[in-house]
Amino acid sequence: MAASDLISQEHYPQAFEDAEALRKACQGWGTDEKAIISILGHRNAEQRKQIRLAYQQLYQEDLVKRLESELTGDFEKAVYRWILDPADRDAVLAHVAIKKSDVDSTVIIEISCIRSPDELLEVRKAYQNRYKHSLEEDVAAHTKGDLRKLLVGLVSSYRYDGEEIDNRKLGHSEAEILHEAIKEKAFNSDEVIRILTTRSKAQLNAIFNRYREEHATSITKNLLGDSPPNDFQKALHTTVRCLTDPHKYFAKILRDGVKKLGTDEDSVTRVIVTRAEKDLKVIKELYYKKNSVPLEEVVAKETSGDYKRFLLTLLGKEY
Amino acid sequence: MAASDLISQEHYPQAFEDAEALRKACQGWGTDEKAIISILGHRNAEQRKQIRLAYQQLYQEDLVKRLESELTGDFEKAVYRWILDPADRDAVLAHVAIKKSDVDSTVIIEISCIRSPDELLEVRKAYQNRYKHSLEEDVAAHTKGDLRKLLVGLVSSYRYDGEEIDNRKLGHSEAEILHEAIKEKAFNSDEVIRILTTRSKAQLNAIFNRYREEHATSITKNLLGDSPPNDFQKALHTTVRCLTDPHKYFAKILRDGVKKLGTDEDSVTRVIVTRAEKDLKVIKELYYKKNSVPLEEVVAKETSGDYKRFLLTLLGKEY
Repeated sequence: MAASDLISQEHYPQAFEDAEALRKACQGWGTDEKAIISILGHRNAEQRKQIRLAYQQLYQEDLVKRLESELTGDFEKAVYRWILDPADRDAVLAHVAIKKSDVDSTVIIEISCIRSPDELLEVRKAYQNRYKHSLEEDVAAHTKGDLRKLLVGLVSSYRYDGEEIDNRKLGHSEAEILHEAIKEKAFNSDEVIRILTTRSKAQLNAIFNRYREEHATSITKNLLGDSPPNDFQKALHTTVRCLTDPHKYFAKILRDGVKKLGTDEDSVTRVIVTRAEKDLKVIKELYYKKNSVPLEEVVAKETSGDYKRFLLTLLGKEY
Repeated sequence: MAASDLISQEHYPQAFEDAEALRKACQGWGTDEKAIISILGHRNAEQRKQIRLAYQQLYQEDLVKRLESELTGDFEKAVYRWILDPADRDAVLAHVAIKKSDVDSTVIIEISCIRSPDELLEVRKAYQNRYKHSLEEDVAAHTKGDLRKLLVGLVSSYRYDGEEIDNRKLGHSEAEILHEAIKEKAFNSDEVIRILTTRSKAQLNAIFNRYREEHATSITKNLLGDSPPNDFQKALHTTVRCLTDPHKYFAKILRDGVKKLGTDEDSVTRVIVTRAEKDLKVIKELYYKKNSVPLEEVVAKETSGDYKRFLLTLLGKEY
């Protein structure tokens, strides 16, 4: 047994028991989806990793592949995303987004702007590991024009993550640069892209606050403009929201997602799976505040079967 | 004593002795530069790090700062660069390059293209640690136009570092994209920048080989063109050379550097210090092959004093 396995056991002794129970759930007639949900739905990322290792060790089989072959549909997709390491999962989500006929820039922006700088680096490593290309290489090869500049800049960024900001100088002058560009409808100016892709989140917050103080309106509102916004404006808008208020952004994605359930499960699955171990509680509270209906209730109403059971488990609702 | 110190001692027991000898060399009337050279000039990066830690522990003083205050001129600069961890040293070199009134793009290109993808990440971390900004943020804020696009793309890249390439598809079509752009003198086209900043080194080699086969001339030659090249063309040229043949590139930098010794020590110091523990031997051989005079001989002729002694020590020549 490798040293790393011993360490793992120390941290999570039930990994082998869980692996055995999952094996049982996958064997014989039919699959015991309820058992799978009740185990995996209550294990954190580190525990799931150890269960995968234990399963491999006991049965010389890849648990992820086995589950893929046992499960189907939205439930399979959700379990598959859930069981992966967070960085690896993001790599998969990014790859799916890139391979769409129209690159799903929302997912790319979400991953690059909401993950911490160090987490984003881990995603880039995991992406290379899986796909033998760099993340920015694939984003660049599948996009063009202004959107390419923005997305490649965002996925390549390794922003300063500290609190030190230059409020006097940068906050003011870069708020002005942004305001001028937006006023002239020069949304794609190099300066707008430079500021959004390289400044730290703390610095950007200072810039956007200054913008609002000086111009009595938020940059997000101005980015959408009066006439219907084009795709690039929408991408900038998403970028600013992800950088400044991820909870609000996710609550909105969930709201739009549940309205379309039955046609588009992906975004609901994505938000619940990626945030379950992070800030899903805060997102649920915000969702309730905005929509006066609990998220669990909408999800329960709009989904069914094992998929529903699994999402509700991740949402912390047992039944 | 912290656990990390104990581990360090295990690896390099003389760290404390060295620290004491350096302390002695810095004390009393005058500084014993020869002792400093003979110790530090024969210690590798890990050993130098442990000497710094031991010195701090023994004397509650920063060895780097002490040496800075004891030494002067080019010798001080060279020792300062040498004693730092490689990633930290690159961060300093990049920062110096950015802060010049005209950003020294050669140094930025050299660091982003010659270091391995993982080494470049370490440089970006070290840069943030020192300057509380991201490297790409400072590069972007101090450059503009096409050069900015190129440099920001290069420093932000985390290239795929494996050997897997797509020779059929990419090698051919991207060689054509580059050739078309160069033929039309559209050096600054987004596609040229995309290819050079995102493709892996193995892939780029395949692309450049294809280019040469199909067009009976190298891309480096074509990039410079017939008329005198502008700064952006020169930057592209440097980029391709750093990506494909760093030894040849360094030999050339040294050759240009020694010609100008007395006016510009920086590039000679930079190459010798950054490559001493890497491939300086290969570079020296190539230098001799190209110039029929040993590098040590030229350096000995063109420099003097402690600076000369130190460079020659790093070049492996005792005297």
